[in-house]
Order: sequence, then structure tokens, then C-alpha cells
Amino acid sequence: MIDRGPHPIEPWQLRETELPFDKLAQAESLFALSNGHIGLRGNLDEGEPYAMPGTYLNSFYEQRPLPYAEAGYGYPESGQTLVDVTNGKLIRLLVDDSPFDLRYGELHSHERCLDFRTGILRREVDWTSPAGKRVKVRSRRLVSLTQRAVAAIEYVVEVVDQPVRLVVQSELVANETQPRLSADPRVSAVLENPLEAVSQDFDNEEVILVHRTRASGLLMAAGMAHAIESPARTEVDVDVREDWGRTTVICVLQPGQTLRLVKLLAYGWSSLRSETAITDQVSAALAAARFSGWDGLVEQQREFLDDFWDAADVEVEGNAELQQAVRFALFHVLQSGARAERRAIPSKGLTGAGYDGHTFWDTEGFVLPTLTFTMPNAAADALRWRHSTLELAKERAQVLGLRGAAFPWRTIRGQECSGYWPAGTAAFHLNADIAAAVRRYHRATGDDAFIRECGLELLVETARLWISLGHHDRNGKWHLPGMTGPDEYSAVADDNVFTNLMAASNLRTAADLAARFPDDARRLGVDLEEEAAWRDAATDVYIPYDEELGVHPQSEGFTGYAVWDFEASRDKYPLLLHAPYFELYRKQVVKQADLTLAMYWCSDEFTAEQKARNVDYYERITVRDSSLSACVQAVTAAEVGHLDLAYDYAYEAALIDLLDLHHNTGDGLHMASLAGAWTALVAGFGGLRERETGLCFDPALPNGLSKLAFTVRWHGVRLRVEIRRDEVTYTVHDGPDAALTVFHAGEPIEVVTGKPVTCPLRVRRPLLPRPTQPPGREPMSALGKTTTTRKRHK
Amino acid sequence: MIDRGPHPIEPWQLRETELPFDKLAQAESLFALSNGHIGLRGNLDEGEPYAMPGTYLNSFYEQRPLPYAEAGYGYPESGQTLVDVTNGKLIRLLVDDSPFDLRYGELHSHERCLDFRTGILRREVDWTSPAGKRVKVRSRRLVSLTQRAVAAIEYVVEVVDQPVRLVVQSELVANETQPRLSADPRVSAVLENPLEAVSQDFDNEEVILVHRTRASGLLMAAGMAHAIESPARTEVDVDVREDWGRTTVICVLQPGQTLRLVKLLAYGWSSLRSETAITDQVSAALAAARFSGWDGLVEQQREFLDDFWDAADVEVEGNAELQQAVRFALFHVLQSGARAERRAIPSKGLTGAGYDGHTFWDTEGFVLPTLTFTMPNAAADALRWRHSTLELAKERAQVLGLRGAAFPWRTIRGQECSGYWPAGTAAFHLNADIAAAVRRYHRATGDDAFIRECGLELLVETARLWISLGHHDRNGKWHLPGMTGPDEYSAVADDNVFTNLMAASNLRTAADLAARFPDDARRLGVDLEEEAAWRDAATDVYIPYDEELGVHPQSEGFTGYAVWDFEASRDKYPLLLHAPYFELYRKQVVKQADLTLAMYWCSDEFTAEQKARNVDYYERITVRDSSLSACVQAVTAAEVGHLDLAYDYAYEAALIDLLDLHHNTGDGLHMASLAGAWTALVAGFGGLRERETGLCFDPALPNGLSKLAFTVRWHGVRLRVEIRRDEVTYTVHDGPDAALTVFHAGEPIEVVTGKPVTCPLRVRRPLLPRPTQPPGREPMSALGKTTTTRKRHK
Repeated sequence: MIDRGPHPIEPWQLRETELPFDKLAQAESLFALSNGHIGLRGNLDEGEPYAMPGTYLNSFYEQRPLPYAEAGYGYPESGQTLVDVTNGKLIRLLVDDSPFDLRYGELHSHERCLDFRTGILRREVDWTSPAGKRVKVRSRRLVSLTQRAVAAIEYVVEVVDQPVRLVVQSELVANETQPRLSADPRVSAVLENPLEAVSQDFDNEEVILVHRTRASGLLMAAGMAHAIESPARTEVDVDVREDWGRTTVICVLQPGQTLRLVKLLAYGWSSLRSETAITDQVSAALAAARFSGWDGLVEQQREFLDDFWDAADVEVEGNAELQQAVRFALFHVLQSGARAERRAIPSKGLTGAGYDGHTFWDTEGFVLPTLTFTMPNAAADALRWRHSTLELAKERAQVLGLRGAAFPWRTIRGQECSGYWPAGTAAFHLNADIAAAVRRYHRATGDDAFIRECGLELLVETARLWISLGHHDRNGKWHLPGMTGPDEYSAVADDNVFTNLMAASNLRTAADLAARFPDDARRLGVDLEEEAAWRDAATDVYIPYDEELGVHPQSEGFTGYAVWDFEASRDKYPLLLHAPYFELYRKQVVKQADLTLAMYWCSDEFTAEQKARNVDYYERITVRDSSLSACVQAVTAAEVGHLDLAYDYAYEAALIDLLDLHHNTGDGLHMASLAGAWTALVAGFGGLRERETGLCFDPALPNGLSKLAFTVRWHGVRLRVEIRRDEVTYTVHDGPDAALTVFHAGEPIEVVTGKPVTCPLRVRRPLLPRPTQPPGREPMSALGKTTTTRKRHK
Repeated sequence: MIDRGPHPIEPWQLRETELPFDKLAQAESLFALSNGHIGLRGNLDEGEPYAMPGTYLNSFYEQRPLPYAEAGYGYPESGQTLVDVTNGKLIRLLVDDSPFDLRYGELHSHERCLDFRTGILRREVDWTSPAGKRVKVRSRRLVSLTQRAVAAIEYVVEVVDQPVRLVVQSELVANETQPRLSADPRVSAVLENPLEAVSQDFDNEEVILVHRTRASGLLMAAGMAHAIESPARTEVDVDVREDWGRTTVICVLQPGQTLRLVKLLAYGWSSLRSETAITDQVSAALAAARFSGWDGLVEQQREFLDDFWDAADVEVEGNAELQQAVRFALFHVLQSGARAERRAIPSKGLTGAGYDGHTFWDTEGFVLPTLTFTMPNAAADALRWRHSTLELAKERAQVLGLRGAAFPWRTIRGQECSGYWPAGTAAFHLNADIAAAVRRYHRATGDDAFIRECGLELLVETARLWISLGHHDRNGKWHLPGMTGPDEYSAVADDNVFTNLMAASNLRTAADLAARFPDDARRLGVDLEEEAAWRDAATDVYIPYDEELGVHPQSEGFTGYAVWDFEASRDKYPLLLHAPYFELYRKQVVKQADLTLAMYWCSDEFTAEQKARNVDYYERITVRDSSLSACVQAVTAAEVGHLDLAYDYAYEAALIDLLDLHHNTGDGLHMASLAGAWTALVAGFGGLRERETGLCFDPALPNGLSKLAFTVRWHGVRLRVEIRRDEVTYTVHDGPDAALTVFHAGEPIEVVTGKPVTCPLRVRRPLLPRPTQPPGREPMSALGKTTTTRKRHK
């Protein structure tokens, strides 16, 4: 076990044993709990000190104007911002006269621990007040994965050496004071006092506060109920105002005695339902939680997680830190999507208000691949959410003069919220990414009902968009000028290879599935002519290639640009904070995998040699100022045989938040990178690709790893893949009759229950030497690092 | 004389005989008076009704925040807006009980007339009050061209048929109520109550109000003094508050008697001088104006204008409407630049607050060519203004990571105020346009002192900018990726032909003049290596050419884009109000002359056949949504032999405001198009080009014109060019010894005083038939139109 300061390396939990106040924001994100519907940042029970208070309900947002110095046609006029709703985490404690506040008195020990198998955040504090009274506070917190509207806290105070009068104030507080966030444009805008009090409902048993957002007009209710155990005379008071409710518990305890409080929380919101309906709904949720009780909630949580880990765990042998990180990552990905249920999965999950709580292509492009193979129902639900916004996307396309559906670059409820179109609306590839997620889900599950319910319509309307965006030139090639690809250091470029390939794939998939489900296609107005037009455009798509250099330009002309002066930028990352867009756009500098991502997602469109040369070329100019890059670079580096480089990238993707590599973990976790850690391992070293022909693997391990094992779901069957240095074993375990045909290094193999298949690994030999990166942007080495040599990026 | 409703066609004046209230805004702009320092919109003396009140002092601005939905590095945080300063035009009249207000009572006749030779706006009204009292009001207004700080009004009221008590309130009013402007993004933002009262200084002789802008902290003073002539007992009161001063004149007149008031106005402002200094300055200006008296001011004005017209007049025979329009245009261009004296010439002059009162490349690109040949000192002063902002431009370049100077796309005082960089900062060609204006001025005047004083430094610092923006490719060609050319329906494109050619010319001129003035070049840090680098880049510049089509793409790849669906856009102009930028940018649709402008300004870089083919190609896709286009299209159409098409464009350029062709004349006149009317005639039909070798002509007249005559200044000599259908006569008239060598159709000819030279015209034969334009965007025909057939654009 390597000690890395506040976080010891342990396989199944994240623990902190110190509480540096300047790292509070990061800790609040790391220790955030969520079920995809409710999100609670890891704020201290007593509320202060805090970096950013955070209690979120998925898709509960406030509207705000989007201002422009110079407006233009089609610019969205209002945006959406995730609201910090009524805080139910708050439990204040008065120890005799002194408020329990770690900034005062003496802290003997502090520990918080997030257990990935129980889903519980545990805290233990041993503290002496400024007046010399010592108490031990223990709390456990959960956001229920089985009771979607419920969270709960067990709060225990033990008096140590002198009699103490304890006052515990357990609260609900609306409109908390928000911190002033940085001037970094990536950090979201914050709204002050977004909640308007509607009503308060309370008795000695429970308190429910109902609020409404001013502009978006959404109703929400938060409720709390308590169970109190005390060995002494205890008085309980309930007090309620418009913006807060408070249950006060007072008692005097002798040394060794403990006060135990179980706080049950319930939340509900709606844009349609009435105030009384919402109040009732929350009250019912509280009743159900009381019925389960704390122990019941804890047990259900454990069962849910056991089931999850059984089919999702990734075992890494040889790097304990990576092992911990990938489980941390999977746990948070689970939290973000588990119970989102037809709501969006934001880029930061519900762990912070960064990026205004918006959902980007991160969901379909990075989070859904992981969920598709580990919790396919959650992936389907996320796509159902997209489908639920289809009408808005069709309206947006119409405003833009296009056909089909133009999904928003960033949004909470489906409306375009991007106020900078060159890196927003113009990144139309998002639509193809949604289509690819549909295809991936369908390939992995064979869920035809989903295709007929909504998948086909998503494919059809995005295909229509592409047809209206593209055109044939005089030589019959099909082009997409003026698109922004994934790389946000290029914009509005012609024939971006990624976008062109993804659009072609979108068109081809739409045509194929329309042909497979002709009745549904006709219902959507698709005729054979339209299908043919889709196939033709896909066939005619123009893919620029630089013959002289033997590489694909990211977009037409890209390889002719001047190369960015990386030497001069050595300490100026992220570049977007130090250089104007126009300068970034006109030079060879890549923020994040773009052509590289095309080589992963459209793997079959490139030869092995092209991949090797492209990786070599783009590694040298990619600065990874985006958290969406390392995981993709891991996959392609692994594919072309740079296994150790891939290992470094996988490590970086997994550790992004634990090491705060982008210096903004405090605004929320990077869900795409965390999901990408799974991808880096499973698609990178496992070589997983889902093809029309079936599930493919081509495993290889980097130096330093002695074993990598993971389980994926494919058409309802759990397949375990255990990779060792020279061989891989495929096992299925779903009942006595489970059978799967998968491909190993291109060859089909049959795996049935009870008969694991072991195959030797194909040796990967890189065509070219390991490439270099821009100076100062080399990935951290995953191999043999200890605290003393690892420096956090500045 | 053709009657065109409110504006009879007369050669030397603009007259209105009706006052349609829905056309007030346009009339206020058309009848605006200015000397380049003070600008008074043509508001009615009595202040109401009005569309937009307007009293402007050149460069007197307020700062305002520039908001962004998503900000980025290098975005300007504050903008500048021209302030409507203390209004001194206001003279209210009470006729017995009734305010003199044309919306009430009975208007027997109304006439206003702007005389281009006297520079005076005359007004005559015959009106009966609601109570039946008839008065005739006559006023004359001028903004002195000889006393820069002074304006004056003569106001005469005649009582017609019954005794009347007259109360005249002559006022100074600060912080007038501004109208709510349209949602059109081109219309400027308006600031409310920008002026803070500082002090008031008054006695019975004069009133001076001093104000300060809140954010920009500029001080201004406005003063007024009166001379009153009355045949009856007359009482005069002076009353002053923080935001207004009022001189009230009361008398009772008998039928036939007149009250005459002369109101003298003086203005001053400063960012440095103290309140008392400014007050004194304004008081002194009033004293000087009193010393001249009304008649003296009128006489000086006439003398100034006689001198101007002697060297600037353009005579057009065969189209009285165009004759009037071109003199109207020249008069307003004169007004915008005459006394600007090292201040900016805004795109709307001082005739309205459109575009926030900003200066763009319109100045150097469109207004200065006209001034260079008609009032060269004003051109030099405008360039001295640019030079005075050089330090700001160098700072801006540094912020952008560039070398040299990056002048602002739009500004009042020199700071970048563009809040949308793709069509702002990225339009770096502005810097080359400044350099071209320096070169043009130097060629036309031989003013070496100006080059050594500031011209060379402008060339050097812009050349340095280009070197830092461009790069050589592997084949040694020099590129400028990611630039926005003049056409604002394309942006951030690679190797825009116009920009590349202009940058090369900038570099070449800088190198040539550095070699001619080596001492000054060394002082600016230019060594021989730097000069060589400039020459090399200029030589290596890459100019894309589409061999298949035989035309120049506007920028790399342009001719491969889909052509805009003009048929579907028939009634959707300007397109920017109906389509998103990304869609405009990625299609073949041109807002304004771009490649076409390159063919005019860099005429020698194209063969005659290329010009003919390019004109043919771009005419079909150019929609002229910018007022900077028609005049340029006139010049190139004329050059390739489409003389009648050129005639139509010249007509459109000249009539832009008289016919309100862009529907926003009310926000201010289009100074570039007005100056462009001169260019269309002189460079188009006169074929004027200034070359290193000398002044060149190649005249040709369109059908419909029997004569075109103009005078230009060249190296201090006035050259008159009189073109008839078959021949042209060149005459010089500056003293007995004036001599000039000019080129006629490529051949040098010597013209000396008293010896006019007459040459036959070279016949122009177009290579291709007259091209068509996008449907609905054909220019209005200049030939044989009358009111009954001319329809204003919708």
C-alpha cells in the first residue's frame, strides 16, 4: 500500500485521513453521492467550511439569459443552469457553547471513506472544542440506489471525557450562499437565490418545503424525517420558515454516552404536477424510507451494488493505484446513470455545478459505451432521454434551415444552451455520436424493441440532418464543409475526417435498420429513395488524405498549417486560457483526440499502417487540454502497439479526479474520463470492438500489469475476460446454457457455460517507435511511481 | 426635373417638401450637418417629433461592458458607444397657448433644403395652431467648417394674420430620451443618461453646461449665446439646471412682424483638460462666433465650400438624379472628414449612432480614396488618427500572441470593440487596408514628410503583424490560414485571395519605403534581414486558383462548396437576419465584394481574362447585403466592359441613402457607399488607378451618360478630366507652370497649364455577356427610370 497523503491506496474504497481546507472542493466532488436522480456533494455534515454547497436533482434547472456582445440569427437567447436545491445534508452541532466547526478547536483525527461496495460515505471525527469538550462524531450517508427519491444520514455523537450539552440542528435549507467561482470560462455561471418559497408542510414527524424556480417555473419539494436515540432526557423542536426547516435535538450526555440520529431525506420535482401532488410524493417517499429503516436502506444498497460489481468489475493486477482508480471511476459512472431514468447524464454527473450541469456528447460518446456493456438498461434510458427531446431538436434544425434533428451541443432539458456556435452548434458530430450510441446499444443487446420504440427514429432524423448538411461536388464526392470536430482547438473546418466518417456511419446505419424494420421506417416517412440517398452519400463521402506525409489531415488542409509553438507554451496550459481561438484554430495543435477518435470509433476505415502513422503524427501535436482525450489516446496507442504509452494514458484517464489533473475537479467529476478509464482498459488492452459480425477482442497487456480481468454483458450474457501476460480466458456465467460466439484476434470462438476458452495473445509489434508529445504534455508514467516522485501538474 | 416625392431632383441641393413622420429617421440622417468634429442630426428645431435625437462630438464616447454567453481569451471586455451629447439645436416655440408641434394644428407648407454649396440647412414652415394662430417659421442652421467648435442657427418667426404672444425657449439639454432601437443586431446599443452634470456657468450673455461620462470619464462642455431682434417689447430670461439651460424670449407681435433669434453654439471636450479649461475654451469659441456673427459664419462657409467644390466636383450629364446624388454624397463625405483632425471618421460620419458610432475599415478602404484625391489633408489627418492609436494596436497584437500592430476591427478611440471575433479581429485585412491607404496617399501627394512622421511606422508595424500571422509550407509557399476577408458571409477561411494579396502588398510597400527611408527604418528597428523577409513572404504568397473552373476561389476550397439556394431566399434579405452564420459560411454566397475588391485594389495581379471570368462567377453569387459592395462591383464591372452594369451599381452606391436602400439610413448615412459613389464614377468610368509609375486613366462611359467630368489632386496639381462619349480631355489648372504626366489607356501623356490634351477613348469589349445576379438582387437600373416604375426595396 503506497501512501499518497490523504488517499491511501485501497482496492475497494476511497479514504481521506486529513482535511486540507484548500482541497475541500476536490473532496466534495470525490465524495459526492448520487443515484442519477439525487446528487449530494461531499459537503461536511455541519455545512462549513465548504467550497461549493451542492444538492442536485437531475434536470432541475433555472433559466438564465445568454447575452451577446454581437448577437446573430439562431443564437439561443436563454440558457439552463443546474440549481443547487434545498440542502438536506445539513446537521449542525453545538457542543456546549461551541459550534462543531473544524476550523476551531483541536482536531485529533479525521477520516472519511467512500466504500464502493456498500455505496456509503462514512465519516469519523475526534475533536475537542475550543472550550475543551471532546466529542467523537460518526456519520454515514447514502443516496439510495433502490429508493430513487431517498437519501439518508446516520449521525452519531459520542461524548468522551466530560458531561456535555449537545444541541443538534438537522436542517433543510434553500437558497444557500454560492461561492464566487473563478473567471475561467469553463466554470459555470451561478445563480443567486433561484428558489421561491411555495409552501411548508410540517409536524413533529416530518418537514416538507416546497419551492419553485422563478424563470423556468419548476416545482420541487424536499422533506426530512428523523429517528432519534438518546440515553438521556432529550427535547425535540421543529421550526420552519420559508427557506428553511429545522429539527432541534437537545440533551446532556455523560462521558461514553452517544446520541444517534437517523435523518431520512426525500426529494421530488416536476414541471407538471401540482404543489400538493409533489408534497404527497415526497411524504410517501419518506414513509417508504421509514418503512425500510436505516438498516434496510443499507442492505438494499449493498445488494444493488453486489449485482453491479458482479457484471462490471475490472480487476487490475500490478498497479494498486490504477485498481483503486478504476473502481472509483466505475462507482461514479454507476452513480451518474443508475437511476437517471430518462433524464440526462450530465458531463459531471450530479457531483458539481461545473459546465452549468449540462450534458454534452460526453454522454453518448464516453459514458454510454461503459454503461452499454455493464448496465445496458441505464444506457437505453439515457438514449430514451435523447429521444424525448427529439421534437426540440427538430425545431432547432428548422430554425437553422436544416432538415431532420439537430440536437443541442449543451443542454439540460433539450434546448440548445451553447452561446458560442463555432464550438457548439457547429459541432454537428454530436448527432452522429448519438446515432453511434444507438447502434452500439443495439449491437450489444439485440434489443429490437428499443430500435422500434425510439432507436430508429433517432437514426432517421439524424440521417436527415446529415443529408441537409452535406453536398456532392462536381466529381461526385460528398462533403461536409464548415464543421467542428471533437478537437475544440479547430473549428468550422472543411471535411473533418471524424465528422465525415461518423456521418457516413450514421447514414449507413439508418439505411440498414430502416431496411430491417421497413414498417417502422415507412411510419417515419422513409421510402426507398431516401434510404438509397443515405447509402449513396455514405459511399461517396470524401476523406482527405495527405499523400506526401502519409497521414490523414484532421480536416482538409490541416497538415499544411503551421505547427503550434509548443516550446513557447510549455507553462501555458490549458492553452485556451492563454491564446485566442483564432490562433489555436489556424495552427496544428490538437486539444483532444479527433482524428485519433475516428481511428477508434471508425476503426475499420483505416489500415493498420495508416493508424500507426496517424498516431505517430497526432501524438506530437495533441495537448490533452480536454478530459476526453487520454482515454481515446490509450485505445489507439494500444492498438498500434504502444502498450506502455497506452498504459500511461489509461492511468491518466482513471486518475484525472483523484489527482485533480485538470485543476477543476472541485467543480465536479469528469464523468467521461472516468468512464473512459474503463474504455482504456477494456477497449485498449482488451481490444474490445463491437462489430456487426459480433463482439471482438484482441488483448495485450502493458509492462507492469500481470493481469486484467473484466466482465461485459452481450445479448444478456455475462462474459468474463481474464487477460494474463500471454493468454486470455473467456468465461460465460449466466445459467447452465449460456453460449456466445466472440472473436479473438479476428478468429471466432465459441464460449459456453462451464467451458472457459483460453487463447494465446497475438503479439503487437509497433510499426514506429514510441512517439513523443508536446514538451510538458507527456502523460504521467503509470509505471513504478511513488508519492515522492509524482508531482501534480501545476 | 423628375419629381420623386419629397426630394425634387436638383443639381446642388436636397429638398423635402413633405414631412412624413414615418420617414423622420431617414430625413434626420440626410439633413445632418457636420464638420467632422461636431455632428447635428437633422432634428426639427422644436425637438419633436423625432426618430433619434443626435448631437455628436467626434470620439466622445461612453464605455460599456461587452457580455458573452461563453467568453474566451482575448475577447474585449468593454466597448465604446458614441454619446448623444448636450443638444443645442433645440428651440421650442409657444404660439399663444399652443406649442409649435407639427403633429397638431394645420401645416400649410413645409420645406427643408440642404444646399451643398452654402452648407446651410434651411427650413420654412407655414402653420396654424390648433387655436387658429398662423405663423411662419424660418430657420437656417450650419455647423461651421471654418470655426471647428461652432454651430449656429438663425430662427425667425413671422406672425401672419392676428396678434400673437410668442414664447421662444432656446435650450441646451443633456441626457435626452433615446428611442428603443430595433432588434436588428446591426443597430447600435443605446446608453441611457450617460452624462453626469459637472458644472453650469451662465449669465445673460451665455450658458455653458459641463458634463462628464460616467465610465469613460470624458469631460464635455456645450455653450450657447443669442442675438435677438424683435420689433416689440421683449423679455429675456435665462434659467439653468444640471441637465439643461434655457433662454426664454417673450414678446407679442402684430401681423407681419418677425422675431429673429441667432443662436450660437460651441462645443468642446477632452480626456485631459480640466473643467475650467474646457469651459474657457467653449466660451472663447462663442466669443469668436459672436465676432464673426451669423453673416460672417455664412460667408466663411460658402468660401470653404467654393474651394472644396472647385477641386472635388463631379459633373454627370445624362442623369440628373445621379448628378444630385453624387454631390449629396461628396458633401457628406466632406462633412465627415473636413475637420476631423486626427480623430476617427466613423462609418456613419456624425450623422447617427448606428454601429455605435464606430470606425471600421470603411475609412481607409472607402472614404480615404475619395478624400485622398479631393482633400488630401483630411486623408492625412485620418491616417494620423490611426497612427495615434498605434500603441494600443501593438498591445492588442501582444495580447493575441502576435507581433507588430493589430488595429481594431471596430473602435472609437483605438481599443478593439468587436464582440464577435470571426467577423471582427479575424478580419486582419484591415491592417493591410490601412497600409494601402498610406501608400495611396503617398503616391497621390508625394508627401515624404508624412511617411517619415508616421506613414512608415504604420507600414512597418502592419508588415510585422503579417509576418507573425503567415507561414511557409513545405513547398515554400507563404500562407495565411484562418482569416476573414471582406465578405462577411465567409469567415476564418484559409488563404483568402484578397487578404493574401493585400498582405503581400503591405509587406512589399513596407520593404520599399524602408529602403527609401533607411534612417527612419533603422530608428524603427528594421534591418535588412527584416526587409528581405517581407519581400520574400510577398513573393512566396500563395494564391489559390481553380484550374477546372478557370476562376479564383475567394479562399481555398471556396468554389467546391455548395451554392446557396438563392431561389429559396428570394425575400429573405439581408440573409444574416434569416440564416445562421455557420450556414452562410459553408456555402457559396458572398455578402460583399471580396475577390472582386482584390481585382480592383490589386488590379495588376490578375490578367484581363481572369478578371472577366471572376466577375462573371462572383456576380452570380454576390447578394450585396453590405453597403460596401455596389461601388466596388461598379469599378470591376466597368473594367471588364460591362459598362451598363457598372452604371447600375454606381447609381445604387450613390442613391443608397436617398432611397434608403438598406432600410437603415435612419441610423446614419453610409459614408463608405457615398464615398464609393465617387469611386464608382472616377475609378469605374474614369478608370483611375494610382500606380507606382503614376496616375492612370482609361475612361469609358455607359449608355445614358453623355459626359462625366471630375477633378482630382495629384502631387499638388488639380487635374480636370472631362470624359465624353468618344474622347477625354485632361486639363491642369494650378498656376501658370503646372505640369503632370499621366497615363491614358496605358500611354503616358504630358498635361501642362493652358494646354489641355484630348485623347480618343479605348473601346472596351466584354469577353463574356453581362452576368446575372441572384434573383431579386439585381441592381436597380440607372437608365430611364421614373417615380412610377421605381419601387423601393422591401
